[in-house]
Amino acid sequence: MEETIITSVQNAKIKHVVALQQKSSLRREEGLFVVEGQREIEHCKACGYEVVETFWRKDEGERRKNISSSDILVTSQVYEKMAYRGSTEGVIAVVKCKEHSLSSLLLPPSSFLQKQAPLVVVLESVEKPGNLGAILRSAEAAGIDALIVCDPLTDMYNPNVIRASIGGVFCVPTAVCTSQECIAFLKERGIKILTAQLQDSYEYYDYDMTQGTAIVMGTESTGLTNQWREAADAHIRIPMLGRLDSLNVSVSAAILMYEAVRQRRVKS
Amino acid sequence: MEETIITSVQNAKIKHVVALQQKSSLRREEGLFVVEGQREIEHCKACGYEVVETFWRKDEGERRKNISSSDILVTSQVYEKMAYRGSTEGVIAVVKCKEHSLSSLLLPPSSFLQKQAPLVVVLESVEKPGNLGAILRSAEAAGIDALIVCDPLTDMYNPNVIRASIGGVFCVPTAVCTSQECIAFLKERGIKILTAQLQDSYEYYDYDMTQGTAIVMGTESTGLTNQWREAADAHIRIPMLGRLDSLNVSVSAAILMYEAVRQRRVKS
Repeated sequence: MEETIITSVQNAKIKHVVALQQKSSLRREEGLFVVEGQREIEHCKACGYEVVETFWRKDEGERRKNISSSDILVTSQVYEKMAYRGSTEGVIAVVKCKEHSLSSLLLPPSSFLQKQAPLVVVLESVEKPGNLGAILRSAEAAGIDALIVCDPLTDMYNPNVIRASIGGVFCVPTAVCTSQECIAFLKERGIKILTAQLQDSYEYYDYDMTQGTAIVMGTESTGLTNQWREAADAHIRIPMLGRLDSLNVSVSAAILMYEAVRQRRVKS
Repeated sequence: MEETIITSVQNAKIKHVVALQQKSSLRREEGLFVVEGQREIEHCKACGYEVVETFWRKDEGERRKNISSSDILVTSQVYEKMAYRGSTEGVIAVVKCKEHSLSSLLLPPSSFLQKQAPLVVVLESVEKPGNLGAILRSAEAAGIDALIVCDPLTDMYNPNVIRASIGGVFCVPTAVCTSQECIAFLKERGIKILTAQLQDSYEYYDYDMTQGTAIVMGTESTGLTNQWREAADAHIRIPMLGRLDSLNVSVSAAILMYEAVRQRRVKS
């Protein structure tokens, strides 16, 4: 392999990676994002993503025998500049974003057959990348069919989403759309809309989630907009039994997803 | 009120607060810790904690009419130095730690009466303050009777525990002890020990949690030690339906706690 080593943080390729890490507008415009770490990159590829360029920190790249000739070596100093997660990983890839259209989601038909009816999570106006990432992580574990993100205030390929999702962002089928589009999509398919809200609601375990179900959650600060409350087949809440009236939104999402899992799997 | 304003970050009182924020050994030695923010401090007092000293950033202290004459004003620069959460709050208190002995826990008697039997969460060797804080937050919401922390690698009054718990750390009854002491405590009271582990386990919803129940969780990296697996009345697991085999420990704890809540509250 012919070694080319980038030694300057002013190098255009390096500046490009740094900009992709920092700017959601650039990620959107170019359809590219950044993944750090060998395990994450392998997982990302296994989920059908296309790696465009790979950068190795020199020591790490040389330690591996079989890195591709198109891969790029960089000095430690340059690596530090590119890396969002600090120096532990040693490898960074630029990867092509996927389309996240509603029409690309492949859902099982909504029917009364439990275990097979679609289970969808919808997040309206999710703001914090850490929360979106954490929900993707739990969604992956719960085996949900799709996560639909409506009118988001963060993008799917924000470095904090990727980090918090522990790979979930690459393998959970995900769509991004407006709330209006999402409501139409769910209603067309006969998927029941359950909105998580404290007022006028049932305790969540009192609702049958074995049918096609969408669990819809708003932001921690302002909750769901009226269009969702009105479109709902039922309003559900997690009972708050303490004094503080607060659960993290990603924790709430996990509790609700796993209630659907429980209802669909439990021996009765 | 006679105004004394601390203007130097070298002031002994200021250095003491900074050291309390940073050093668990000092917190333990002096039995003191630091709380930031008016709402947090009020909540902390309402939970029976004793505030030893209060520091106001000058602008914030002057805006309030009724701050106590023993309170201390500090300049913005000094406040920045003391504050862990940045400049948003404007008030910091030094507070006395509580005892967290097993004998101080007041549990309802273990019986077969659902809704009233004790519900306890045990964390072995919890390491990340953010996880401990997040679990305290969910524990508060789920109304559990006690959180028992065995052989912890972080302390209860770490600033990240306080921050992540959103006040939960002050009001959830908590004990710190060895695993051995905890096992003896639970067995004496007839509280069933359910260990969360992937191997040799039932899916968690197949176990009756309406009796006196302790949900026991280990670290994300190494799980529980053998003493807990052997002491267990049952091993339970959350089914992982994706490819990644991973849930955050605080999310897992919340799912398990709320399953106990569900079983105890559901209309049957």
